[in-house]
Amino acid sequence: MRCEVVAIGTELLLGQIVDTNSSWIGEQLALHGIDSFFQTKVGDNLDRVVGAIELALERSDAVICCGGLGPTQDDLTREALAVVTGSPLVSDEAMEEHIFGLFAGRGRRMPANNLLQAMRPETASFIEQMPGTAPGLVCPVQRVGADGATRDLVVYAVPGVPWEMQEMISGTVIPDLQRRAGVTAVLRSRTLRTWGETESGLAELLAGRIAALDAAGNPTLAFLASGMEGLKVRITAKAPTAEEAESLLAAEEAELRDLLGELVFGVDDDTMESVVLDLLRAQGRTLAVAESLTGGMIGSRLCDVPGASDVFRGGVVSYASDVKYDVLDVPTGPVVTEQAAIAMAVGVRRLLGADVGLAVTGVAGPDPQEDQPPGTVCMAVVVGDPEAGGVVDSLRVQLPGGRRQIREFTVITVLGLLRRHLVEVASD
Amino acid sequence: MRCEVVAIGTELLLGQIVDTNSSWIGEQLALHGIDSFFQTKVGDNLDRVVGAIELALERSDAVICCGGLGPTQDDLTREALAVVTGSPLVSDEAMEEHIFGLFAGRGRRMPANNLLQAMRPETASFIEQMPGTAPGLVCPVQRVGADGATRDLVVYAVPGVPWEMQEMISGTVIPDLQRRAGVTAVLRSRTLRTWGETESGLAELLAGRIAALDAAGNPTLAFLASGMEGLKVRITAKAPTAEEAESLLAAEEAELRDLLGELVFGVDDDTMESVVLDLLRAQGRTLAVAESLTGGMIGSRLCDVPGASDVFRGGVVSYASDVKYDVLDVPTGPVVTEQAAIAMAVGVRRLLGADVGLAVTGVAGPDPQEDQPPGTVCMAVVVGDPEAGGVVDSLRVQLPGGRRQIREFTVITVLGLLRRHLVEVASD
Repeated sequence: MRCEVVAIGTELLLGQIVDTNSSWIGEQLALHGIDSFFQTKVGDNLDRVVGAIELALERSDAVICCGGLGPTQDDLTREALAVVTGSPLVSDEAMEEHIFGLFAGRGRRMPANNLLQAMRPETASFIEQMPGTAPGLVCPVQRVGADGATRDLVVYAVPGVPWEMQEMISGTVIPDLQRRAGVTAVLRSRTLRTWGETESGLAELLAGRIAALDAAGNPTLAFLASGMEGLKVRITAKAPTAEEAESLLAAEEAELRDLLGELVFGVDDDTMESVVLDLLRAQGRTLAVAESLTGGMIGSRLCDVPGASDVFRGGVVSYASDVKYDVLDVPTGPVVTEQAAIAMAVGVRRLLGADVGLAVTGVAGPDPQEDQPPGTVCMAVVVGDPEAGGVVDSLRVQLPGGRRQIREFTVITVLGLLRRHLVEVASD
Repeated sequence: MRCEVVAIGTELLLGQIVDTNSSWIGEQLALHGIDSFFQTKVGDNLDRVVGAIELALERSDAVICCGGLGPTQDDLTREALAVVTGSPLVSDEAMEEHIFGLFAGRGRRMPANNLLQAMRPETASFIEQMPGTAPGLVCPVQRVGADGATRDLVVYAVPGVPWEMQEMISGTVIPDLQRRAGVTAVLRSRTLRTWGETESGLAELLAGRIAALDAAGNPTLAFLASGMEGLKVRITAKAPTAEEAESLLAAEEAELRDLLGELVFGVDDDTMESVVLDLLRAQGRTLAVAESLTGGMIGSRLCDVPGASDVFRGGVVSYASDVKYDVLDVPTGPVVTEQAAIAMAVGVRRLLGADVGLAVTGVAGPDPQEDQPPGTVCMAVVVGDPEAGGVVDSLRVQLPGGRRQIREFTVITVLGLLRRHLVEVASD
């Protein structure tokens, strides 16, 4: 089963909108074992939209059209599908009533244009899921192949609004494609989030396991470097049932965790921030951060996580050196040192009355500071009262990249340092 | 002149990387008056890459291939172009030496694989710009059209690394396309950055001007809502020379500024952060920020701007209420109020010894706080000593969207409030 994606919209060609929909659909197709060899972007022009769909039908068994289902003159996908299916556009009464009801339910008058959205090629049916006002379409079509045999093909149309599109793809398009492909196998994937090794370092640690999996063919592994999100290792397993696929994933996760140990900080949607907040919450500890070069990025990332407020007390952004001296009681002197980082962590912990303090100070560039090159970063964590047996640890690193990358790597590195200490405390 | 983009890489089809390169190239082509009707993504498969390029050559006069120029087995673009041009791959000695020198200059051993990058189809030439180790290619090809006439076409190949790609497109590909198209007209664009009105509000303010420009056809306007980057108004002008295009832009900018007044905060690469920092620097003032719901995002955005350190002293992230009371001397009581925001701004200004203080406090959600719904945000700015004639201003807003959007709109809104006061001070 081969399926192509045709993204429709002049704004995509003009670069006014980045086509993230096709990427998301491509990922879903791959995860569910459906081949996809081409993706095409085409503007709001009837002939060219029809041409792009016809070409995709020559190369593949199914086509997903994304976009162009709105209520305006520019929205040509319905018309294009009438041409492709060779069947006239008809008004669907039930759908007209449904759309009318949607507007009435919100106490709004329905613009007459929206009735256009109740039109469908006569041979097409609507996609069951309809989270917005634009219905999706399933259009069966037939073509004669080079061998003279009839090919039963299908064109789906989904709106360009991401959450509407995603619900239709997951709810109808993928299951329908799998049914047409006679796929009985189920694919499931799980992503281990790691931090502390490069991609080639991970590949070395896992070399034996990768060779074994390559030989067996199932599950498979993929690496993906993701900046501040860590380095991801995705496991994909295929099995006759969801239960069996999940159990393959669980077994493989256990194997990889044995090999990678502490490098694995989370799974799937975990972030280093959410993991650290969860550990602190479980330990009944609160956190304060002192930031120099990151300027508030550590705090901002922590606050991205809903519910951060029961753990995260806040922080001090001590960008100027004398804010470090005056507000955080850092001894006067050089500030790109591990000693200064420790003093910042101790100071912010005390000032904000938190159990745990962490701090970063360093050179984001473009210019050197205190004769240190950009990328030089000192960081520290203080867990508990340092004068009563608390843990104090610090680190000096040389990070690669430009200003933004240095600051982002600083965020995940210091949170990773804190995580290691929290895990140790928990396992004591 | 029609030009298509073919983005090459299996990782693009699998959704592991979002294809932002094609969007950027599409925008450049449009800006320079070159039509682009299709963009295609294709995986690392020789036959399919060749097929995608051949198809694009049937539909268009030029093709830009992006990606697949690296040194590994997966990188098939050179090979595909050998097929398309019908000329063998040859090693280019000068390029071999150049690449060798690049590695030697960095004190690194060159992996043998990198010599692959010195190969080119015999009839192709290298693109002059080469910011990385992957050279770009210009490949003239000829095809016979449906009318039997010879068509002189061209295929460009650029690497997938965005900054390498961009330098080659701007430096060689666009000028070469314009030369081939016999384009003598020059296109220039300028973007006004606005904040404070919705897209439809702007359209209303500019209705008369838009009608006049639509009638004249040159320059043209486009609106683009860009979240924390503000609402952009792009002016594009066409003229026989760059000087004339620039002077059209300048005249139109003046017209629009008359109509939009204080809504325009910057031009092109200006951000609200860079504009506020520039104003403060010009006035010899320093800044401190107190953040609650944004958790450090204001400080982090300010520090994105190189050179922030001579203005931005730092801040306090007072996420927990008692950090507001204890560290910033906010009177005990409700914290989602304009009074609390003012107290935070006054407090952080004094604590950090800055000339200007700003503060935000509010509800990012998902849960209400102090019976206020998500999106309720109070903000304040204090310019100068409030007990010696300094300016104190505050604002209460109800922002739309989810947790992230509320926090992002908070950042640009409070910086916009500060900007207005700094502009007033400057014009006093």
